[in-house]
Amino acid sequence: MARYDTIKDMEKTDKLYKIRHSLAHLLAIAALEHDPKAKLTIGPVVDNGFYYDIDFSEGKAPTPEDLKKIQKTMKKLAGRKLPFTKRTLTDDEAKKMFADNPYKMELIEGIIKEGEKATVYDTGDFTDLCEGPHVENTGEIDTDAFKIDHIAGAYWRGSEKNKMLTRIYGLAFETGKDMDEYLKMIEEAKKRDHKKLGADLDLFFMDEKVGKGLPMWTPKGTAIRFEMENFTRNLERKYEYEHVYTPYLGSEELYKTSGHLDHYTSSMYAPIDMDGDLFYLRPMACPHHIRMYQRKAWSYRDLPIRYAEIADYNRYEKSGELMGMIRVRKFTLTDAHIFVTPEQLKDEFKNVCALIKEAMEGLGLDKIVSYRFSKRDPNNKEKYYPDDNLWNKAESIMKKALDEMEFKYTEEEDEAAFYGPKLDVQAKNVNGKEDTLFTAQIDFLLPEKFDMTYTDADGTKKRPVMIHRSVIGALERTLAFLIEHYAGAFPFWLSPEQVWILPITDAHGDYAKEVLSVLKKAGIRAELHDEAETLGKKIRNGKMQKIPYLLVIGDKEVEEKTVTVESREDGNKGAVPLSELLKNLQ
Amino acid sequence: MARYDTIKDMEKTDKLYKIRHSLAHLLAIAALEHDPKAKLTIGPVVDNGFYYDIDFSEGKAPTPEDLKKIQKTMKKLAGRKLPFTKRTLTDDEAKKMFADNPYKMELIEGIIKEGEKATVYDTGDFTDLCEGPHVENTGEIDTDAFKIDHIAGAYWRGSEKNKMLTRIYGLAFETGKDMDEYLKMIEEAKKRDHKKLGADLDLFFMDEKVGKGLPMWTPKGTAIRFEMENFTRNLERKYEYEHVYTPYLGSEELYKTSGHLDHYTSSMYAPIDMDGDLFYLRPMACPHHIRMYQRKAWSYRDLPIRYAEIADYNRYEKSGELMGMIRVRKFTLTDAHIFVTPEQLKDEFKNVCALIKEAMEGLGLDKIVSYRFSKRDPNNKEKYYPDDNLWNKAESIMKKALDEMEFKYTEEEDEAAFYGPKLDVQAKNVNGKEDTLFTAQIDFLLPEKFDMTYTDADGTKKRPVMIHRSVIGALERTLAFLIEHYAGAFPFWLSPEQVWILPITDAHGDYAKEVLSVLKKAGIRAELHDEAETLGKKIRNGKMQKIPYLLVIGDKEVEEKTVTVESREDGNKGAVPLSELLKNLQ
Repeated sequence: MARYDTIKDMEKTDKLYKIRHSLAHLLAIAALEHDPKAKLTIGPVVDNGFYYDIDFSEGKAPTPEDLKKIQKTMKKLAGRKLPFTKRTLTDDEAKKMFADNPYKMELIEGIIKEGEKATVYDTGDFTDLCEGPHVENTGEIDTDAFKIDHIAGAYWRGSEKNKMLTRIYGLAFETGKDMDEYLKMIEEAKKRDHKKLGADLDLFFMDEKVGKGLPMWTPKGTAIRFEMENFTRNLERKYEYEHVYTPYLGSEELYKTSGHLDHYTSSMYAPIDMDGDLFYLRPMACPHHIRMYQRKAWSYRDLPIRYAEIADYNRYEKSGELMGMIRVRKFTLTDAHIFVTPEQLKDEFKNVCALIKEAMEGLGLDKIVSYRFSKRDPNNKEKYYPDDNLWNKAESIMKKALDEMEFKYTEEEDEAAFYGPKLDVQAKNVNGKEDTLFTAQIDFLLPEKFDMTYTDADGTKKRPVMIHRSVIGALERTLAFLIEHYAGAFPFWLSPEQVWILPITDAHGDYAKEVLSVLKKAGIRAELHDEAETLGKKIRNGKMQKIPYLLVIGDKEVEEKTVTVESREDGNKGAVPLSELLKNLQ
Repeated sequence: MARYDTIKDMEKTDKLYKIRHSLAHLLAIAALEHDPKAKLTIGPVVDNGFYYDIDFSEGKAPTPEDLKKIQKTMKKLAGRKLPFTKRTLTDDEAKKMFADNPYKMELIEGIIKEGEKATVYDTGDFTDLCEGPHVENTGEIDTDAFKIDHIAGAYWRGSEKNKMLTRIYGLAFETGKDMDEYLKMIEEAKKRDHKKLGADLDLFFMDEKVGKGLPMWTPKGTAIRFEMENFTRNLERKYEYEHVYTPYLGSEELYKTSGHLDHYTSSMYAPIDMDGDLFYLRPMACPHHIRMYQRKAWSYRDLPIRYAEIADYNRYEKSGELMGMIRVRKFTLTDAHIFVTPEQLKDEFKNVCALIKEAMEGLGLDKIVSYRFSKRDPNNKEKYYPDDNLWNKAESIMKKALDEMEFKYTEEEDEAAFYGPKLDVQAKNVNGKEDTLFTAQIDFLLPEKFDMTYTDADGTKKRPVMIHRSVIGALERTLAFLIEHYAGAFPFWLSPEQVWILPITDAHGDYAKEVLSVLKKAGIRAELHDEAETLGKKIRNGKMQKIPYLLVIGDKEVEEKTVTVESREDGNKGAVPLSELLKNLQ
């Protein structure tokens, strides 16, 4: 099934665009059959079909029943193989034809002002102001491949000052199979949506009173967060990173030196005055780690220096653009900056690749991520740091490192950062949309701007090269991907509640508490559910909450010092001695 | 030895004040002997002695040699039992007497303006404008109990617009023993000063380019930080706290509701505009944890709810008031907020006491902390939340809890928070100065302001009570105390580098690496020092860095699979099998 990310993409796939646009006209015909006095406005194509904004007569806004009829009419019209014919009108003809529709008149005046000629399409008796393109005739439309989706209100021209119109949305694809796949994906995506599951599983929430775009991690979400943090730091220790902790504020001078105030201000918030000095909420920690490096003098023998930090960042986002944990105003990146000699660059970048690969495997995301090698466009002189030699060197080193690591990757021109090439770790979300989860970059520019040095073997001062890299991306965004990937059924180690203990009656409470204490001492996140509910309800709750193991405790279990295990993955595993369970869980 | 925190305290201890003030006059006499044309200005008492600001003739500012002479003159004068005699002058007499000293004239004009009369003290031939009080005669001054300390520049009346004068500082005490003790304490404090040791041991630094008052934690400092974090969280898990993670920003509305914008703005930075909404860098996390509580409905059976967070805070500090890690602009508090029913309050406060006690013992700070029970002043109607019943209840519950926990504490009136009584955990730093390390508080007010509720057994909505508490205070300030308390020789578990491995020659490198790998796998922070230095120098460095264990590896150790252990506490412990060492370290 083809997927379309933007209207621009759709225009390229001509046929589907024509089908969708033609269906907008059929919708208009059917709407006029429902309300002959309705005034049509505009009916464009969107990324899963089309809509038409219509000014219905009073009391004639369609009910769900009406929408069914409208859809029926559309299907009938499509079956009749009606041709679409284009005509160009003189200005007078156009004005005369749409004289009783103020919306179309406004559009026509716009066309005339631009010095263009209005065109219309005829479909049977119906004529609509339209640029096209359209199908030759409605026979090209598969009647099983479209349907009315939903209805909404929309202001004329998007302005609150104008009248509220009725917008009717339709889904449309080339084949019925395409539409079924689309509907299935939407259904699945809704179930897996991280905002919905985040609330159902009580992992995080957004609170307008605290502030838009500022995530609140609940106890369960924080348990996952701590696991992600430990996972990151343990991996980094293995790869010989040093952990540092630096402030989420930086002075004006710092971001002037780094160039962020020249190139990145649109993503930054306004500064705060601290007793006469201006401070910014930091958008990135590179300058802090550079200053960490610069607290000492280094020899070539000391390099690579690798500073890792789960670092707090703030990026300017408009309220309307915030999206769950994917787009937030404050987030935490598993970040690091590595300072190497030019000779060490390739091997160190290979180390970074190995680390990223191991991290993605560890999180179980290796199946959904792909790699993109983002290079400069040598012709785009404005965007990139102007040193062809350095660029060629950086790109060829990155490519060699990727090849030697046997990474499969795509190459993309004009996607590099302004200071160097990037390895983008791309992930598809459940809507099939691809997003950059995080990146690794080679940077010759910042070491220059901060005048960084090390002493080489010959005693001369040399300039180190810098690698920026994340290891599992931003904790917020990665949590969103993990929720959607696992549909909330996290692997055992990431599960915020790993085990529920369910005594059948109060009589089993003492042994249940003993089990709880044994599990907790072993570092397992276990919860005792001894509230006055039926066992059936507790088990259902546990399954809803996607708990990996439910341990049922009744007379037999107390007597035999066992627990009856209901596993999320393997179902009922019967009675298991507590000591055996503990061994298995660890 | 008596210690004096403020000039006010000193004035209470009359005798010492008189001694110091009289010595300022002797300093003036000696200075005039050195430069008869010098113009005296003011000579007040400070918390370890006195100073005199003097406008010396050109070229006559005293050299170190001159200062020795001045001190000698002062000792001679003191030995002569010169009396101090007070006289009150008419305005004309005063103006005539000091006509050639513009500084004294300015002071006299001030006195006249206030409607007062100028007084002078005569000491031998010398007369100075002075209010007193003074000793009867210089025989009361112990000549072994004072000395010239140092010299500095100071503007007349503290304004840069005025002339720079020479300030001569003197130390003065009642007895020579007092002065010796003071000097010893200063010497010790200098050695233990957390700013000095923090730099020597490379634990943290402040970088003006990053921003004043924003600590940068180096890899070694971060290792301690992580240990403090783990220590805190493990203790909190034991006491059944839940960990949450909330943003360091909060909306204007949030801090309006909490009352911080009414009562606490002087400690807050100006707000940041985020797409039309105003956000503050948070000074406290109470409102965030309250909103965390309010995401759900709770029953009395669910309480106590305990939310803990190592939370980022920002407090407004003027540049001039910043002080190492003690006073910073951004810090991290081991914070928690507990929500209880009124019936649970006493027992829960006892839990808090037990937690704090265990925490202080765990850090080894139990010997230097003391407890202060801070109550309201019932007569101070302006400062405190006006509900005598609630206050009486809160104070009596806190007192009962403290008594039942057998805490030793002092009681202090008018030291409570505006919303409730506090338990202050007080610590003395190496200068002997007492500071509040952190607090635990009972709060009836915020639950009211946020309209918090739970459902009681009878089905009615009730108001929970809130406890604010830290467990080891702010990580920054506590690190400073730990550095000074241990003089940088941290206990093993807190040591950023626990073990150094020192191979004698390259021939021992392979086995040294094996030892490193074994220790690292066991989670021990071990460092290999195979750089080309003598063993002696490496051992000296290791001792300077206060490393708990230095492991020397030579031929014998390689052969016998041992390490020769140099322990920071116990000295040379001879050759120990690696496996035995590992067991001991764990």
